[in-house]
Amino acid sequence: MPSEFDLIEKFFTRPPRAGSAVLLGVGDDCALFAPESGMQLAVSSDMLVAGRHFFPDADPFFLGHKSLAVNLSDLAAMGARPLAFTLALSLPEANESWLSAFSQGLLQLADRFDCQLVGGDTTRGPLNICITIFGEIAAIDALRRDGARVGDDIWVSGTLGDARLALAALQQDVALDTGELRSAKERLDAPQPRVALGLALRGVATSAIDISDGLTGDLGHILKRSYVGARLDADSLPIGSALARQPLELQHRFALAGGDDYELCFTAPVTMRDKVHAASQTAKVSVTRVGAIEAEPGLRLFDAHGTPMSLTLSAFDHFAS
Amino acid sequence: MPSEFDLIEKFFTRPPRAGSAVLLGVGDDCALFAPESGMQLAVSSDMLVAGRHFFPDADPFFLGHKSLAVNLSDLAAMGARPLAFTLALSLPEANESWLSAFSQGLLQLADRFDCQLVGGDTTRGPLNICITIFGEIAAIDALRRDGARVGDDIWVSGTLGDARLALAALQQDVALDTGELRSAKERLDAPQPRVALGLALRGVATSAIDISDGLTGDLGHILKRSYVGARLDADSLPIGSALARQPLELQHRFALAGGDDYELCFTAPVTMRDKVHAASQTAKVSVTRVGAIEAEPGLRLFDAHGTPMSLTLSAFDHFAS
Repeated sequence: MPSEFDLIEKFFTRPPRAGSAVLLGVGDDCALFAPESGMQLAVSSDMLVAGRHFFPDADPFFLGHKSLAVNLSDLAAMGARPLAFTLALSLPEANESWLSAFSQGLLQLADRFDCQLVGGDTTRGPLNICITIFGEIAAIDALRRDGARVGDDIWVSGTLGDARLALAALQQDVALDTGELRSAKERLDAPQPRVALGLALRGVATSAIDISDGLTGDLGHILKRSYVGARLDADSLPIGSALARQPLELQHRFALAGGDDYELCFTAPVTMRDKVHAASQTAKVSVTRVGAIEAEPGLRLFDAHGTPMSLTLSAFDHFAS
Repeated sequence: MPSEFDLIEKFFTRPPRAGSAVLLGVGDDCALFAPESGMQLAVSSDMLVAGRHFFPDADPFFLGHKSLAVNLSDLAAMGARPLAFTLALSLPEANESWLSAFSQGLLQLADRFDCQLVGGDTTRGPLNICITIFGEIAAIDALRRDGARVGDDIWVSGTLGDARLALAALQQDVALDTGELRSAKERLDAPQPRVALGLALRGVATSAIDISDGLTGDLGHILKRSYVGARLDADSLPIGSALARQPLELQHRFALAGGDDYELCFTAPVTMRDKVHAASQTAKVSVTRVGAIEAEPGLRLFDAHGTPMSLTLSAFDHFAS
């Protein structure tokens, strides 16, 4: 069996790139790099655990893709440009075909965003993937969670709920036809981080977060840190194409509280609507206005007729089982 | 049971520090910080897995200490000054007393090195701790693995082998008296990262690595990347105080191939011996000359009489079981 060091070299080491911010990559005690002069480093870590974030028999190509995608999504939510990442991997066994497919899914996405693997760690143990990602941003441009202001519009990118629908189908809680399942499963397995949209929203959005745990929970973080409340118009939510064929109650529930969409939720002043639409066109991602920031704390839901709704929703919480 | 978000806030969130490089810490999509102007960022990730790197019932205080210590040790081996770190934690359950002790061990060491926790992720799953650490260094000062030159002395800091001896005792392969076990176990449980020595060796050492997998294996990385070989004088190795009471063969084996010491192995020109000793005094850590870099590839062992030794040694390798 090839040793740990051989496997790391075989699948994850690439030659350094000319003109890259990365001076020293995989293979020393540390990687060395720097953001451009005057730029801040944006850093985020996400850990994916078998049985919790993915099925233990998940396709390794998609697992590689998703592991990096959720981290790129954090950069997107900050408006940061991807630079580099580290990978720490715990594996039950050093399976070459698994590692080959995993590294392909991972590195293809990395290449698409010019984000270089600069270091890592491999060990034997229960399947666990931990990625730390680095981007750069001028501090003044950062799309923080604490910038929402009363009167701001609330927007979401893309569509919501199909990832959660795919999970429900895989758990046999919902029956989908083959086409619906395929399109929903693509949202669950291969989320597209909204990096271009995050970059285009710098100077436009007042706050942003990526929707990993569900819209209400993630918007809740913006509300808490910005000391504001919000109203959401449940019937204006952009519903995923497969979910749109399900009963309205399920549409609301999965769009509001389903996790794993990795769309952006952001706020922007009413005067910025044209610029939000321009950012959407630049990034080639749709955006939908779904509510407004209000002074009164808490989150209130309304239907298309302005009637209050009392859905009991809570964010996905890894420990509140 | 408190939610994930509550637990993270309770144990790991601290107020931002004045004058810190960290602009935005725990609680947003990303942390934001920058190395000082003209400095490079040194980055390393290590993952610790229950049953592989520590016993599942390990004292959480020491586990917190060690999780950060092994990462600080990577910065030390680069000559970098600690800045910040992220923590991703997978836990079977949100146990408050465990988290309290773990965070104390972790944050006490972090405070000692002025290294700020800037972000993280907590999830439910088999116990797994992944830390990514950030330091800063002028690129020209970095103690890389590829700088060893023929004729350089080979040095190690502190003493070797006691961590491996403690493991042998815990696995009941070796019997130790209470005092020996206590002192050996301290080396295993609470390694002291040689950050001050790494900083003092900038401009003095030509290469460095930290000894996590065993001296021969880790020195082997320097040899490979520097395209050189080496001779080691087995009888000159600084043996841990508990190990020094064991048979000579075990001393050699554990000092040469035992992991978990987290001392530095470094090379420096013969003309730098005074400066190496000065660095040792500055850092208050002993250093010992244990061999020399040679042109002939490979690693050769000799005893005090210059007689070649044929110990069969291999580095600790997480997949070569």
